[in-house]
Amino acid sequence: MKKDNTIFPADRYRQTVLEPLFTDFKEHFYNEMMKINYAHAVMLYEERVINHQEVVSIISGLKEIEREIDLENMEYTGEFEDLFFYIEDQLIKKIGIAIAGKLHTGRSRNDMDITMYKMKLKKLLLNLLNQLIELTKTLLEIANLNKDTVIVAYPHGQPAQPTTYAHYLAALIEILLRDIDRIFAAYKTTDNCSLGAAAITTSGFNLNRKRVAELLGFGRVQENSYGCIAAVDYLLEIYGSIKTFFISLGRFIQDLGQMTGFDLSHLYVPNEYVQISSIMPQKRNPVPVEHLRIMSSITIGYCDTVISSLHNTPFTDMNDAEDPLQVVGFKAFIEGGKVLSLVSDFVRGLEVNQQKVKEHIDQSYVTITELAETLVRKEKISFRQAHEISSEMVKDLLKSRKKLSDIDYTQFKDFFVKVIGREPLLSRDEISEALEPEYFVSVRNMFGGPAFDSITNSLSSYQKQLGKFVSIIEKESNSIIKADKKLDEELNSYMIG
Amino acid sequence: MKKDNTIFPADRYRQTVLEPLFTDFKEHFYNEMMKINYAHAVMLYEERVINHQEVVSIISGLKEIEREIDLENMEYTGEFEDLFFYIEDQLIKKIGIAIAGKLHTGRSRNDMDITMYKMKLKKLLLNLLNQLIELTKTLLEIANLNKDTVIVAYPHGQPAQPTTYAHYLAALIEILLRDIDRIFAAYKTTDNCSLGAAAITTSGFNLNRKRVAELLGFGRVQENSYGCIAAVDYLLEIYGSIKTFFISLGRFIQDLGQMTGFDLSHLYVPNEYVQISSIMPQKRNPVPVEHLRIMSSITIGYCDTVISSLHNTPFTDMNDAEDPLQVVGFKAFIEGGKVLSLVSDFVRGLEVNQQKVKEHIDQSYVTITELAETLVRKEKISFRQAHEISSEMVKDLLKSRKKLSDIDYTQFKDFFVKVIGREPLLSRDEISEALEPEYFVSVRNMFGGPAFDSITNSLSSYQKQLGKFVSIIEKESNSIIKADKKLDEELNSYMIG
Amino acid sequence: MKKDNTIFPADRYRQTVLEPLFTDFKEHFYNEMMKINYAHAVMLYEERVINHQEVVSIISGLKEIEREIDLENMEYTGEFEDLFFYIEDQLIKKIGIAIAGKLHTGRSRNDMDITMYKMKLKKLLLNLLNQLIELTKTLLEIANLNKDTVIVAYPHGQPAQPTTYAHYLAALIEILLRDIDRIFAAYKTTDNCSLGAAAITTSGFNLNRKRVAELLGFGRVQENSYGCIAAVDYLLEIYGSIKTFFISLGRFIQDLGQMTGFDLSHLYVPNEYVQISSIMPQKRNPVPVEHLRIMSSITIGYCDTVISSLHNTPFTDMNDAEDPLQVVGFKAFIEGGKVLSLVSDFVRGLEVNQQKVKEHIDQSYVTITELAETLVRKEKISFRQAHEISSEMVKDLLKSRKKLSDIDYTQFKDFFVKVIGREPLLSRDEISEALEPEYFVSVRNMFGGPAFDSITNSLSSYQKQLGKFVSIIEKESNSIIKADKKLDEELNSYMIG
Amino acid sequence: MKKDNTIFPADRYRQTVLEPLFTDFKEHFYNEMMKINYAHAVMLYEERVINHQEVVSIISGLKEIEREIDLENMEYTGEFEDLFFYIEDQLIKKIGIAIAGKLHTGRSRNDMDITMYKMKLKKLLLNLLNQLIELTKTLLEIANLNKDTVIVAYPHGQPAQPTTYAHYLAALIEILLRDIDRIFAAYKTTDNCSLGAAAITTSGFNLNRKRVAELLGFGRVQENSYGCIAAVDYLLEIYGSIKTFFISLGRFIQDLGQMTGFDLSHLYVPNEYVQISSIMPQKRNPVPVEHLRIMSSITIGYCDTVISSLHNTPFTDMNDAEDPLQVVGFKAFIEGGKVLSLVSDFVRGLEVNQQKVKEHIDQSYVTITELAETLVRKEKISFRQAHEISSEMVKDLLKSRKKLSDIDYTQFKDFFVKVIGREPLLSRDEISEALEPEYFVSVRNMFGGPAFDSITNSLSSYQKQLGKFVSIIEKESNSIIKADKKLDEELNSYMIG
Repeated sequence: MKKDNTIFPADRYRQTVLEPLFTDFKEHFYNEMMKINYAHAVMLYEERVINHQEVVSIISGLKEIEREIDLENMEYTGEFEDLFFYIEDQLIKKIGIAIAGKLHTGRSRNDMDITMYKMKLKKLLLNLLNQLIELTKTLLEIANLNKDTVIVAYPHGQPAQPTTYAHYLAALIEILLRDIDRIFAAYKTTDNCSLGAAAITTSGFNLNRKRVAELLGFGRVQENSYGCIAAVDYLLEIYGSIKTFFISLGRFIQDLGQMTGFDLSHLYVPNEYVQISSIMPQKRNPVPVEHLRIMSSITIGYCDTVISSLHNTPFTDMNDAEDPLQVVGFKAFIEGGKVLSLVSDFVRGLEVNQQKVKEHIDQSYVTITELAETLVRKEKISFRQAHEISSEMVKDLLKSRKKLSDIDYTQFKDFFVKVIGREPLLSRDEISEALEPEYFVSVRNMFGGPAFDSITNSLSSYQKQLGKFVSIIEKESNSIIKADKKLDEELNSYMIG
Repeated sequence: MKKDNTIFPADRYRQTVLEPLFTDFKEHFYNEMMKINYAHAVMLYEERVINHQEVVSIISGLKEIEREIDLENMEYTGEFEDLFFYIEDQLIKKIGIAIAGKLHTGRSRNDMDITMYKMKLKKLLLNLLNQLIELTKTLLEIANLNKDTVIVAYPHGQPAQPTTYAHYLAALIEILLRDIDRIFAAYKTTDNCSLGAAAITTSGFNLNRKRVAELLGFGRVQENSYGCIAAVDYLLEIYGSIKTFFISLGRFIQDLGQMTGFDLSHLYVPNEYVQISSIMPQKRNPVPVEHLRIMSSITIGYCDTVISSLHNTPFTDMNDAEDPLQVVGFKAFIEGGKVLSLVSDFVRGLEVNQQKVKEHIDQSYVTITELAETLVRKEKISFRQAHEISSEMVKDLLKSRKKLSDIDYTQFKDFFVKVIGREPLLSRDEISEALEPEYFVSVRNMFGGPAFDSITNSLSSYQKQLGKFVSIIEKESNSIIKADKKLDEELNSYMIG
Repeated sequence: MKKDNTIFPADRYRQTVLEPLFTDFKEHFYNEMMKINYAHAVMLYEERVINHQEVVSIISGLKEIEREIDLENMEYTGEFEDLFFYIEDQLIKKIGIAIAGKLHTGRSRNDMDITMYKMKLKKLLLNLLNQLIELTKTLLEIANLNKDTVIVAYPHGQPAQPTTYAHYLAALIEILLRDIDRIFAAYKTTDNCSLGAAAITTSGFNLNRKRVAELLGFGRVQENSYGCIAAVDYLLEIYGSIKTFFISLGRFIQDLGQMTGFDLSHLYVPNEYVQISSIMPQKRNPVPVEHLRIMSSITIGYCDTVISSLHNTPFTDMNDAEDPLQVVGFKAFIEGGKVLSLVSDFVRGLEVNQQKVKEHIDQSYVTITELAETLVRKEKISFRQAHEISSEMVKDLLKSRKKLSDIDYTQFKDFFVKVIGREPLLSRDEISEALEPEYFVSVRNMFGGPAFDSITNSLSSYQKQLGKFVSIIEKESNSIIKADKKLDEELNSYMIG
Repeated sequence: MKKDNTIFPADRYRQTVLEPLFTDFKEHFYNEMMKINYAHAVMLYEERVINHQEVVSIISGLKEIEREIDLENMEYTGEFEDLFFYIEDQLIKKIGIAIAGKLHTGRSRNDMDITMYKMKLKKLLLNLLNQLIELTKTLLEIANLNKDTVIVAYPHGQPAQPTTYAHYLAALIEILLRDIDRIFAAYKTTDNCSLGAAAITTSGFNLNRKRVAELLGFGRVQENSYGCIAAVDYLLEIYGSIKTFFISLGRFIQDLGQMTGFDLSHLYVPNEYVQISSIMPQKRNPVPVEHLRIMSSITIGYCDTVISSLHNTPFTDMNDAEDPLQVVGFKAFIEGGKVLSLVSDFVRGLEVNQQKVKEHIDQSYVTITELAETLVRKEKISFRQAHEISSEMVKDLLKSRKKLSDIDYTQFKDFFVKVIGREPLLSRDEISEALEPEYFVSVRNMFGGPAFDSITNSLSSYQKQLGKFVSIIEKESNSIIKADKKLDEELNSYMIG
């Protein structure tokens, strides 16, 4: 073996790893680290691992560092491995190694890091949940204004039946409520404090893990210390549930593309969201839809990066789940946050073009199934016969390139007599009514259907569910704010006392 | 336009699409479809959409078809688009079109299909949950037998500290309990009946959706009918949560690879799981570990196929989520099920090789941090000084290529005097004790630590949580069995009466 | 340590691993393994590692086994680990251990397995390449028939400009030619024989690797023996390139969905590909498009499963890339093969509905940019002025809900005079001509444009490129056939001689 | 419909879409856009679409804008949609609308954008290729110095046979050469100029596409104009091939983790790459390996984001492949570039710890297969008998926990006599030699084996292949530089002339 005269860190390692880590740490984790320092110090004193003079000295020293530090202009010098060691060194310089050295008792970088990540992620998740609530509120408002606004439903990608805009939006509201539930479950998984796990096995100092968790605004202590350090299912659940939402949202965005597009124009896009082509004067492009799609895809891509990076890594090596990957995950919140704020405003600006929808329904015969159902109910004939009569009429219209409103009552009568053997009871007006999209909607008054009463009940039920989420999430936000305040008060009590 | 003389289906379409669909349907959905037929018929009668004679006729006809059908040997002839139309045709032949035709009142292939998928998935999920419970039980048993069995913890992939096998397994048990929770949440999302949504907007027949759901063993009716047909978040949540579990399990499998491998051999693999090389007689390969890894990866691959296939599809086109994709998803349950049954048996066969672990601890100095902590607690010196003394001693051992047990008390005394300025209070025996892995473990008695009392509490708490899951999942299984029974009783009452 | 009385294999291991492996092996690799046995035996004799009597005895024994074996009805008994050992045992029984035992000289399961995989994959790849060539031929034929058939181009998802069906298809043909190139490159990477690498380091018997490769139809020997066993980039390239193709094809399928859909109906779908709804008589669903999309997604999913399963595996552990994963990969060929055969037939059946396209162009003003360009060229005014005039005219049409063909020459004249200050040179007929889609196309005669001459040149150039691929791929197929024949002749010469 | 008084752009659209686009454009595409402006102007003049005075005016105007612009401090004001329109407006202000307006003749944002992306990607790809060449050179150098350095090969994850460090590295070199080939193929696909395609169908101005391509340093013109705009296979091939490389590299990194880890320590990591634990003084963590793994995973994640985002998008909507996604792709080059520079330096610093390897070989019996092979060759006995003798000896060593070097010649002799029935010819020394790892290596002198001559030939062949790549890539780089220079000269000739 050659003699090894090299000294850590190698230049290349510094450039490619340590500097980027430092920059990320400054931007994302400084505040969380300082809170952990304070909370740990307070608990060490309460458990009599350090004495009163020591805790006061540590807190004062840290406060002074906070006042003096100029994070923004701080460059990575390589003197310290990272910001943690820089702060520790500053504290030693201020209050001496004998006391400063005690702050690290019974903890390690491992449990500190994961606690920091969770604190940060909890905030990002609450923010995301509030954005989801805002979107749901927006959709609920629009739905309430559009209980009678007819649109066309496209199962299997073809115009099939009329329904209302409210009924369509309600489908999305239901999914959103489930997504809020799933993402909130991920929040609860993240709300487990890892501090006290130390390197991986806890320590021989009988610390109060519950107290530190409380001071840092955590709802619970994560029990097994090995899992505190090595488990990554909180990340899988967070980014899995966010991805789940954005795939569903992306499906809605595909619909928006179709409905706002030039060819259908069922949804009118206001000028503020329309880009004009510089060389094709006829074009009126609803560009936000295209951007929403790719932004959602990119959000999903960041989520997948976090998840896939953990595939086939050892449970006992936690490095893969550390800073660099955490920061990629944060990008999902940023990109996804842009999607949510844009989609919410954009949808608020849309208006159903009822004229276009009307014409389209007339051309696409999408109310014809109701004629068959009406025959079943009113003429008491079997569905099969009713269907036969309706089919014949559609074929005839298609052949002569006519619209549904051009339907001929005399012809209907003839068909009916031919198939049933008697005159129909339904009058000309009743036939016309049965083909009206409004009538189609009004008879679909079952649980979950689009008729006025049915959708009114649905929307009011969603409103209630949303209300519950609003208060749950407010409670969580408040408990973090309260913990912050309590920690501040504790610190002040040492500073004064 | 040319004249179109072609007739559905084109040969190629039949070969590539219709035949495979038929085969899958026979294998996976026949029973579910028949149950839906029965439940729908019963409800139609109860709601007086059909009369008593009609319901009796329909049920008898279907029963006869069931007795006569020879699914296994049924080939796709192309006469009917699929098995649904074949059954409908059989029914018409048996009881006449007038009555048979009424069975399809107020429903459509759309709501039937999704209800079938959910019924099937509910069973698969309950089965998977039972496998997860079995694995958790196995790990709990092993953990209870190994509260004192020392192993080496590897945070950041290097030997770092001793802990116990029970403590390590407990980390996995905690994750498993969370996975059971997540997968059970996916079950609840799936337990929403879509029947009654018809094509997408319900129908004008005021049907009792709750009653059909009940007869089919669903816990709830999914409200919005558009969402009943178009929402796919149940699939995203199912396969997302399964994937989440298998990524975590895969990380454990990576550890097994290291611990059972020739070089460490911390875990002894019994002969029944060891393959011998035909040309390298020294080899004793614990092959199941390798197979578990790739089988888990393949399971994840199937999950991802389902999820990715739904990306960028329109909300209004449900075809992507239909039979072919459902069947790919089922493969995840099959492959994942093999992983679960193998890993459970395999882990049960493993035994910690305590001799190997002991030697390894001695060579890797992983108890040295406890010496420093002991000095802090017993000699009342600061951690920094304690750390200085320990470091010096390790450096000395490394230089002379000695083991930790070769440590020299006199040398320790000299170091201590040099740093602290007085003789140590700790005796030779106390130093030796502080370096014992058993001692290391015993002092880590905090919440979540590996010491006997602490891990005993943890394991008993997990046992309780598992017990809760067991009864919840039993309850769900029973409610499906009860519903099946009830439906049978209903049918019998029509047949007799 | 407990005494270990267990015997390999454990029941669970047999059920979950060995049996499935056996079934897969029978179905996919038996022929390849036998060829390897023969080729290796011949080479061992040629290199004088075995003598003439020995080679004759081995070949005769193997031939007899082949005659006697009943693969289809063979069940896994567990007596032998797998089919390889079964064959070896049969050979020993037939010709005695002394000679049979020599067949395995200088080789191992490792190099045999990877060679088998490559032989199988080469065939699958050639088959896939032929399907791609077929599709390209189909598209070329259709393009040649549609050089004058106008359709609408949709950059950014909105109707923008007219072009021809040939021009659109040519875009796909170009991509297909590049995909054939990429997949053929993957073929060449796979066409490197691993045999002779033995377990990983070759052997001390100076074998002729080139000769075995030749007898097995390989183009080259893969050099480094460690890489022969451990490198998986051939899999990454194969499934990466297949995925690349199916993503591009999927984009084309999305277009088909739009163009064949009810709302545009630019492409007429023949009855043989149209499914009718049983309850909505107006519907005429071009279902193959939906199936093509999900089948392509599933194909991509299988490709991804192979690729992702190799992420984060050690280079030195080749198990992940073995049988079970290979078989998942084969599914991509099967599912993708169905897509290719269906899409080829389906597209052949489509016809542009020129009436619909004409009306749509008229309503969507997509020829208006050419009016501006014509003004630039004919009136010698600047593009900006030309653009101003065109824009005014479109605005006017939009306001009055008129079509482009309703344009008013007098109004044009007025606009022109107002902006330019003189009468236009262009006559009423020239204006009308400038707005004709056929004219639009005819002036776009640059390299790569849609005009007749330009597209004729393009298509003929693609035809030439395709011709080259056809002969290259034929050559490869032939060289495998020739090698098979040569190996047979060799074997016969030993049997006779 | 409500009256629409809104004006583009909505605030939210500006914040979430336009501002980020502007920032990205400034950073990534400004230079490319300006070059396109110049090249297009020159060609327009050469084709006489604009006259000499006009081209001089346009070039001078653009040059002035370049001198004056302060990109770095430029904020997005919303006055112009993006930087393109800002530059156009500046040009109009400088030289008047009449001339400035002619620059956009026969082109569009569509063809400009894709040309910009390709120009940028070509540079990034050449840079990446040079990094790959550097890594290959490094590995070749190290391999050349380690042709005799024994290490242990781990097929199936267990110690199996000795080989040399050179032989192992050669496996990676071969893969790298194939990756360079694949990524260079992606470069060639990207080296097709899209300019002249205009919006999607070219234009009626008979432009010289070849000339513009040449001035911009492209090797070829991409023919079909629809494909120029809509095809994305260049992105799929680029990011697919990069991902392929990083998966292979990641497998090598997994090996590094094992070989540099504390337990094996076969590779010595110099201090400059080792991090020390602050609480565990025994630890000496080779952290770069962990960082290389996660950085590779993140690189793969960015590649996947690009690829997956294009899944299920329509061919006719190119928005998904535009700026935002391009910029995510660039992150793959940045992160991947860090990996390449770090891995290259890191591997250069490693040294095989021959003492450790030696001890490990002795304990793991990995040379025993050679004893069997030697018996076959020297004693002329069958492999089966040879294998039997070797197995017996290993079993004996294992039972008595002895090393391979402890083998007892007398015992060997007894075994031999028992099995063969005569005294062995091999002497004590010959047996010892057969068990030496150096001997094991030296007899493996086949094509692709580790013996000195064999590996020397291999390395020299790789050197040649690498040399070819070096000159091909240099040629490509030079042709871009030359094109830049030529464009500058052209511009100067107009400015002077």
